[in-house]
Amino acid sequence: MFESAELGHKIDKATYDKEVPKLREDLLNAQFDVAQKAKFPVIILVGGVDGAGKGETVNLLSEWMDPRHIQANAMGEMSDEERERPAMWRFWRALPPKGKIGVFFGSWYTAPIVQRVLKKTSAATLNQHIEQINRFEKMLTDEGALVLKFWFHLSKDAQRKRLKALEKDPKTRWRVTKLDWERFGMYDKFRKVSEHALRETSTAEAPWIVVEGADERYRSLTVGKILLDAMRKRLANTAKSAPAVAPLQSAIDQLDVLDKLDMSQKIAKKKFDSELEKYQGKLALLTRDPKFKNLSVIAVFEGSDAGGKGGAIRRITGALDARHYRITPVAAPTEEERAQPYLWRFWRHIPRIGRFTIFDRSWYGRVLVERVEKFCSEADWMRAYGEINDFEEQLSESGAVVLKFWLAVTKEEQLRRFKEREKIGFKRFKITEEDWRNREKWDDYEHAVCDMVDRTSTEIAPWTLVEANDKNFARIKILKTLCERIEGAMKKVK
Amino acid sequence: MFESAELGHKIDKATYDKEVPKLREDLLNAQFDVAQKAKFPVIILVGGVDGAGKGETVNLLSEWMDPRHIQANAMGEMSDEERERPAMWRFWRALPPKGKIGVFFGSWYTAPIVQRVLKKTSAATLNQHIEQINRFEKMLTDEGALVLKFWFHLSKDAQRKRLKALEKDPKTRWRVTKLDWERFGMYDKFRKVSEHALRETSTAEAPWIVVEGADERYRSLTVGKILLDAMRKRLANTAKSAPAVAPLQSAIDQLDVLDKLDMSQKIAKKKFDSELEKYQGKLALLTRDPKFKNLSVIAVFEGSDAGGKGGAIRRITGALDARHYRITPVAAPTEEERAQPYLWRFWRHIPRIGRFTIFDRSWYGRVLVERVEKFCSEADWMRAYGEINDFEEQLSESGAVVLKFWLAVTKEEQLRRFKEREKIGFKRFKITEEDWRNREKWDDYEHAVCDMVDRTSTEIAPWTLVEANDKNFARIKILKTLCERIEGAMKKVK
Repeated sequence: MFESAELGHKIDKATYDKEVPKLREDLLNAQFDVAQKAKFPVIILVGGVDGAGKGETVNLLSEWMDPRHIQANAMGEMSDEERERPAMWRFWRALPPKGKIGVFFGSWYTAPIVQRVLKKTSAATLNQHIEQINRFEKMLTDEGALVLKFWFHLSKDAQRKRLKALEKDPKTRWRVTKLDWERFGMYDKFRKVSEHALRETSTAEAPWIVVEGADERYRSLTVGKILLDAMRKRLANTAKSAPAVAPLQSAIDQLDVLDKLDMSQKIAKKKFDSELEKYQGKLALLTRDPKFKNLSVIAVFEGSDAGGKGGAIRRITGALDARHYRITPVAAPTEEERAQPYLWRFWRHIPRIGRFTIFDRSWYGRVLVERVEKFCSEADWMRAYGEINDFEEQLSESGAVVLKFWLAVTKEEQLRRFKEREKIGFKRFKITEEDWRNREKWDDYEHAVCDMVDRTSTEIAPWTLVEANDKNFARIKILKTLCERIEGAMKKVK
Repeated sequence: MFESAELGHKIDKATYDKEVPKLREDLLNAQFDVAQKAKFPVIILVGGVDGAGKGETVNLLSEWMDPRHIQANAMGEMSDEERERPAMWRFWRALPPKGKIGVFFGSWYTAPIVQRVLKKTSAATLNQHIEQINRFEKMLTDEGALVLKFWFHLSKDAQRKRLKALEKDPKTRWRVTKLDWERFGMYDKFRKVSEHALRETSTAEAPWIVVEGADERYRSLTVGKILLDAMRKRLANTAKSAPAVAPLQSAIDQLDVLDKLDMSQKIAKKKFDSELEKYQGKLALLTRDPKFKNLSVIAVFEGSDAGGKGGAIRRITGALDARHYRITPVAAPTEEERAQPYLWRFWRHIPRIGRFTIFDRSWYGRVLVERVEKFCSEADWMRAYGEINDFEEQLSESGAVVLKFWLAVTKEEQLRRFKEREKIGFKRFKITEEDWRNREKWDDYEHAVCDMVDRTSTEIAPWTLVEANDKNFARIKILKTLCERIEGAMKKVK
C-alpha cells in the first residue's frame, strides 16, 4: 500500500513554479463549476503520518481555491454535545452542502485506527468499524458526493529525520513534543493498522490516494492535480447512470405481514381507562428514574392516513415531562435539507442522552411515499433499507432505545374515518385531496409497508405492527411496548 | 406587583370542568391558525417561585394543544458549546420559527435574577441586563413574535405550606431537597429582585402576567385563557401597522465620512511585498499564541461592488491555519432563516472561543442593500442600527474582537474594474446586470453607508474605512488594523 510513497518523489522548483499558476486557475474554475452548475458536495479526507504535511496541504488548498466555498473541519476533541450522541453525529453536522468543499482534518478513520493502535479495541472491532465506514462512504457517493481520501505517508526513516530537523531549528523546536516521539515509537504498529484500514476501505467509489509527504512540492502538486482531475471527471459525468436493481422478492401466495394481523382486537372503555392509567403511570416513573439519564428513546410513528398517530402520540406525551421530550413532525425537506444526503435531516434531530424524541413520520418516508409516488429512483429507495439499518444501529449503539410503530387500519375503517372527519369539519382534521389520492394507491402502500418491515425490522430496532382499527387497543399496545422496551434497556444500564 | 397574586384565587371543580373542554378546542384552533395562516412565532416564558406550578403548566399546555407544534425548552445547565459563546446564543438557537410555539422554562431572566439574589452581581449590572432584555424583547416583537411572559407566584406563607405538604406525602417527599429550603430562606431577597426585574421589563409589547400559583385549577385556566386571548388578538391584527419613523439627520453641507477619505493613497509593489510579509507573519504568530485560545475574532467585510473584498480576505486567510478560521459568505437567506428574526442567520455562525470568523458581507445588509432596494420597511432598517449595536456588544462581551471593514472605491475606479472584469471574462469574476443596476444607485448607497458608519461605529466595534482604490494599500491597512486590534485584546487577556 505504501511502497510507491517511499520512493523519494521530488519535484524541482522550476517545474513547480511553472505548473502551479495554471493548476490554481484550473482548480478555481472547477470549484466555480461545482458551486454554480453541477452542485455536488466535495468531501476531502486528510489523514496519515504526523509531519507528512497534512496541515500544510489543507492550508494550501484553501489558498489555491476560493476560501469562501471550502471549509476545513478540524475534528479534534469532542464537545459534550457531541459525546452524548452517536460517534458519527459530529461528521454529519459538518458535511458540506451541495456545491461546497469540506475538508476533514481528522476523520471517521481517526478513532478506529488510533484505538486499535493503542490496543483499546480488538481486531474484530476494527473490522466492524471498517465495514460501517464502507457503508457510510457508499451512501455518500450514492447521494452524489465526490469523496477524496488522501493519506500522507512518510517512511519510518523519513519521519525520524523530519522530527530531528524540526527539533534542531529553534524556530520549529516547539512543534516537536514528547507525544510526537512517543507516537513515533508506535510507527510500525500504526503503519500496520492503517495499511489494513486503508486496504479494506479503498473502494471503487472512494479509493485512498497515498501521497509521499517528504517533498512539499511533490505532495502539493500531486494533491492539487488529483483533486482537479476528480472534480473535472465528475463534472463531465453528472448524469448519474442508474445502477441495475435486482427485483425484491415478493410472496407468490399473497400472504403478508399485514394480512396476518387480527384487526378485530378491541379494548372496551372501562378496561382502557384502567390500562391507560397503569401504563402512563409506569412510563412516567420509568422516564423519571435516575437510570433514564443514561438512555435516550427514539420512537418512530408511521401508519396509514387516519391511522391515529396523533392521538397515540398524545397518550405518550401525557405521561412525560414536557421539558424532556421533543416531537419532530416530518414534513417536506427544507432547502438546507435538500442540499444534504437524505438522512441528514433526521441526524440533525438526534437528541442528547436522557431525552425522549418522537418522530411523527420519519426516514421511512423514503421507502413508503417516495417509493410509491416515485419521488426518488428505484435504486435510491432500494439502498435506503441498508442505510436505515446502519443509521438505527448507530443510534442503538449510542444508548438509544429505537422503537418503530406501524399503525395499521383496514381500508374500510380508513374510509369511515375520512368521512367522519369530513363531517366534523374541525379545521385541523380536514381531509385533503391528497389523502383521497393516497387511498387510491392502497395496494402499493401495503406492498411497500411489507417490504419495509421485512427489510428493516431488526433485533435492535424491531417494528411493532399495531392493529389500530380500535384506537383504544392501539394506544395501550403502544404504551405497553414502550414500557417493556425501556424497562429492558434500563436493566442493562449500570 | 404581586398583590393580586396573593389573594387566594380559586376555581371550583364544576366551573373548571365546564370551561376546559371549550378552552382546549379554542386553543387548538388558534394554534392551527397561527401555524397555517398567520405564521408568527409564539414565545412563552415561564418563571417564578418554586412550587408554584411552572412545570405542571408547561405540561398542561402541551397536553391541551397539538404537541407537535409546541416545544418546551428546559434551559438548564449550559453545554460547553454554549458556554463558549455569548450568553444569549443558547436562546437564539432555541427560538421557535414562524408558526410554532416555543416555551422557555427558565429564560433570559433566570441568570440575571439569580446572580443578583446570590449577590454575585451589583444592582447596576442587573439594571444593565434588564436594559438588554428590554431591547431583545422589543426586537422579537418588532420581528412579529408574540411574546408572553408568565410569572408564577406564591406568597411566602403559601410556599412554606406547599413545601411542608410535599414533604409530608411519601409519594412526593423526594421532590423537596435541602436546596429547596435554602432557596426558601432567600424568599424575601428573591421577591425583591424579581419584582424589580418584572417591573422594569413589563413593557407594552411584552408585559408580565403574574399568576397566583397555589390553586391548580385557577392557574391553569388563567394561563390557558390569556394565551388564547393573546393569540386571537394577534390573529385578528396581523396587518402590522408601520410605526412612525423620525427622519435621520442628514448633513446639510454635503460633507460626509466617505468624502473625507484620501482615495489617492497607494503602496508601491516593493514596499507592499515587505509589508505583506511583515503583517502576515505577525498575524500568523498572534493567532498561534496560546493566549489567542481565550479570544475570538469576528471580522466583517463590506464594501462597494468590485471593492476588493475577496482579495483582501485571501491575504488574511493566507496567514491563518485553515483549521481555525471559517468564512461565512452571506447570500440570500434560506427558508429556515426567513422563518426567524433577522439576526438569527448570523447568530448561528457565531464561533466558539479561539476561532477566527470572517463574514463576507454581513448583518449590515439590512441597512445597506435592504434599505436602498426597499426589501424591508423604513421602520425595520431604522431599528436595525440599535439591534446591531446590541448584537456586537454581546459578541464583544463574550471575548470576541469585532472588526468591521468598509472597502471604499471611487465611482471611476469601480467603472474601470467592472470593464476590466468583463474583459478578462474569468467566469467567477463575471459582472452581472445586478452590479450595473446597483451602480446606478451609487448616491443612495453612499448615503446609506454614511448613516451606517455614524450609527454603528462604536468604541467596542469601530468601523475601519479602507481607501481601496489601490488594492495594495487596502490590504496592508486591513492586515495592520487586524494585528493591532488582536494585539490590544491579547494584552487584556490574563
